[in-house]
Amino acid sequence: MIDYKIINAYVVTVNSEFLIIENGCVCIENDTIAHICETCDSHDIEAETVIDAQGNLLLPGFINAHTHAGMNIFKGYADDLPLQQWLFDYVFPVEAKFTNRENVKIGSSLALLEMIASGTTCFADMYYFVEETARLCEEIGMRAILSQPIVDFPVADAATPDEALQLCETLMQRFANHHLVQVVPAPHSIYTCSAEYVQKARALANRFNAPLHTHLSETAEEYNNCIEQHAKTPIEYLNDLGCFDGKTIAAHCVYVSENDREILAQKRVCAVNNMQSNLKLVSGVSPVPELLESGVKVCFGTDSVVSNNSLDMYTEIKTAALVHKYRSGNASALGAQQTVFMATRGAAECLGIDHLCGSIEVGKKADLQIVNINQIHVVPLYNIYSHIVYALQGGDVDTVFINGKCVYLHKHFQGIDAFDVMVRAQELANTIIDEMANR
Amino acid sequence: MIDYKIINAYVVTVNSEFLIIENGCVCIENDTIAHICETCDSHDIEAETVIDAQGNLLLPGFINAHTHAGMNIFKGYADDLPLQQWLFDYVFPVEAKFTNRENVKIGSSLALLEMIASGTTCFADMYYFVEETARLCEEIGMRAILSQPIVDFPVADAATPDEALQLCETLMQRFANHHLVQVVPAPHSIYTCSAEYVQKARALANRFNAPLHTHLSETAEEYNNCIEQHAKTPIEYLNDLGCFDGKTIAAHCVYVSENDREILAQKRVCAVNNMQSNLKLVSGVSPVPELLESGVKVCFGTDSVVSNNSLDMYTEIKTAALVHKYRSGNASALGAQQTVFMATRGAAECLGIDHLCGSIEVGKKADLQIVNINQIHVVPLYNIYSHIVYALQGGDVDTVFINGKCVYLHKHFQGIDAFDVMVRAQELANTIIDEMANR
Repeated sequence: MIDYKIINAYVVTVNSEFLIIENGCVCIENDTIAHICETCDSHDIEAETVIDAQGNLLLPGFINAHTHAGMNIFKGYADDLPLQQWLFDYVFPVEAKFTNRENVKIGSSLALLEMIASGTTCFADMYYFVEETARLCEEIGMRAILSQPIVDFPVADAATPDEALQLCETLMQRFANHHLVQVVPAPHSIYTCSAEYVQKARALANRFNAPLHTHLSETAEEYNNCIEQHAKTPIEYLNDLGCFDGKTIAAHCVYVSENDREILAQKRVCAVNNMQSNLKLVSGVSPVPELLESGVKVCFGTDSVVSNNSLDMYTEIKTAALVHKYRSGNASALGAQQTVFMATRGAAECLGIDHLCGSIEVGKKADLQIVNINQIHVVPLYNIYSHIVYALQGGDVDTVFINGKCVYLHKHFQGIDAFDVMVRAQELANTIIDEMANR
Repeated sequence: MIDYKIINAYVVTVNSEFLIIENGCVCIENDTIAHICETCDSHDIEAETVIDAQGNLLLPGFINAHTHAGMNIFKGYADDLPLQQWLFDYVFPVEAKFTNRENVKIGSSLALLEMIASGTTCFADMYYFVEETARLCEEIGMRAILSQPIVDFPVADAATPDEALQLCETLMQRFANHHLVQVVPAPHSIYTCSAEYVQKARALANRFNAPLHTHLSETAEEYNNCIEQHAKTPIEYLNDLGCFDGKTIAAHCVYVSENDREILAQKRVCAVNNMQSNLKLVSGVSPVPELLESGVKVCFGTDSVVSNNSLDMYTEIKTAALVHKYRSGNASALGAQQTVFMATRGAAECLGIDHLCGSIEVGKKADLQIVNINQIHVVPLYNIYSHIVYALQGGDVDTVFINGKCVYLHKHFQGIDAFDVMVRAQELANTIIDEMANR
């Protein structure tokens, strides 16, 4: 028995032929895409629930390949400040005081709901109290690659890097073969995690055939300091440590030499472009067209809301596509179809989950978004990829499926009280405002 | 008798003190803001209609200071192409064939509705068949400064520049003292309009004490050609022609020397930053922080949807605020409050209409937007300006008033059949697709 039959859909499969079906029908059985029909003549297929997409878009869910979900409680707490002041006077102090198990749960709840409501069905995260976020993913029904931060100094959920590694391993075991969640290690960056723990994290990841998640070459300061200290670029330095000998999710990659690009391509490192965050923090702009040219796999992430301040992938990919054109001097750089690919199937390939999701193909898990194109700002329609990248917004998402489960239906969250999450988040924010003002 | 009483509003006045009233009430009488109450104890004020804002944001409507509304019929027609190919192989041919009175009416209808639904209450336009757009503004209830293009060669609505000037003058007379629409001349640019007609346009504008609207120093090619031909920058060239001896709305201003900045400041030229368009067409980035530093008045525009592809001022100002930080190397450049100012009261000052609109103050016309902040992606709230610039989107706008008239109520257009506009626009687009494929 088919669970869901989505009819009258403008199906953008993002399969290898980039097939678009104008009046298609997609059937979901359990967690899987069971049928894709080129016409809606599949009315003889009986289904538990029929959803009439009314000519709207059916797209693979977006993949947000780098964020810090728990930080959503700090959205808008500190903006428009120079990096050092922002970090040391605002972000670090408020995190030191308020990053605990309960608050991460609130932050991650906000983040998961925000992502779902804007069409994101999978994300790669790096934040403390991974298990809280993992349990939320289970509860709400979100796909995620959650990473345990590993740093040299004491942090919210671990007093030492060894403790963090141990915690990570425990969670990797606990969530092994989980249907939604994978836990992986995250040596935070070269400036917070020593060589020894980078290598231990890599070894741990490899024991589970899991990716490792890290921040890489985000700022000029990081890049120049590394050259000064090690006579190597951050990418050369980590490569020499063996950090890339296994799947790697590398956020930022703003400062990359020609040799760096070759390393990233050869080691099949997944480079995550966080355009809006890199602009807002004045970090720079990753040379994504050149990375792609060198054969590096690139996808997109929003980074945390503290440096964005949104998890909406629509605005992220529009800004990325526009700024890469400007920076590279090439109006054809990051064309609309390629950009959509990089936010869906390309991202799944980057993260090593393209056997599960990233496109609308029979046998893949049903990670889907229905997007309302019967709206004044997306009329008329000439090219659907142009509209996805340049004209649609997160708020246009109507319905979302993850792993075959309808988690958001006609703009309503299913099975979670979003209002309660919002109330608890604002109460916490009020406490944060009071206590930080009085410190 | 008060026509509308908006209660329980989070009023962001953008007045000179940047007053914010957390639980305020704003009363509209006819076209004007009649009362602003700091509490909702104004229940004794009787009103025809009470609108409960439910704690949502009440903001001045945004002002989109440079666009080409009629081009909305071409949204997404051609993207990701090098400028010359885009212009000569796509935009000019399709415009030559399809820009006529009836189609401009369809395009402008789309544009007006898209702008209203995303919180824009006033726009400065430059396109053919001005009267069609003017009549639509009247009908729908939109505030606008509409400009008649003046170029050396035959265009859709004028065979000669003299004819365009004559047409412009007729319309300026016809709409003199109109409650919503002002018509002004637009010598298109230095590369399409000769010195003689720039000067004639300036003289015409001055006879009506009206601004002149032009494209200025948009591309490196324009800048370099001008220096080659006239040994002057485009700004110096127009200044020497007397073009700035009167109110001027100058779109783009991407290439500006230090001397140019002084000229723009001294002549009180309004520089319109069209960030997304300038990125998409690889024109460059206007040095807005430096312009502001020099005392130049700057506001924002989306440009046409053919180079954006959206009229949403929320994404426009977010992208602008982020890219200016990156380009200037200063994370504090275009801070959130300043950016909101530049999209509202600052823009009204730029366009010389701040006695009418741009802020929520008693005596000003009621040009207002109610924005839904009871949503997961804008929780929690620390700083309302941060949310406006970095987290909200056009789709979050719930209700819009222009000149005291409610034109959009709880996401429904008032007194216009948006569905009919959409159907006619798509029919036209289908014809465009067919005919351009067969040419």
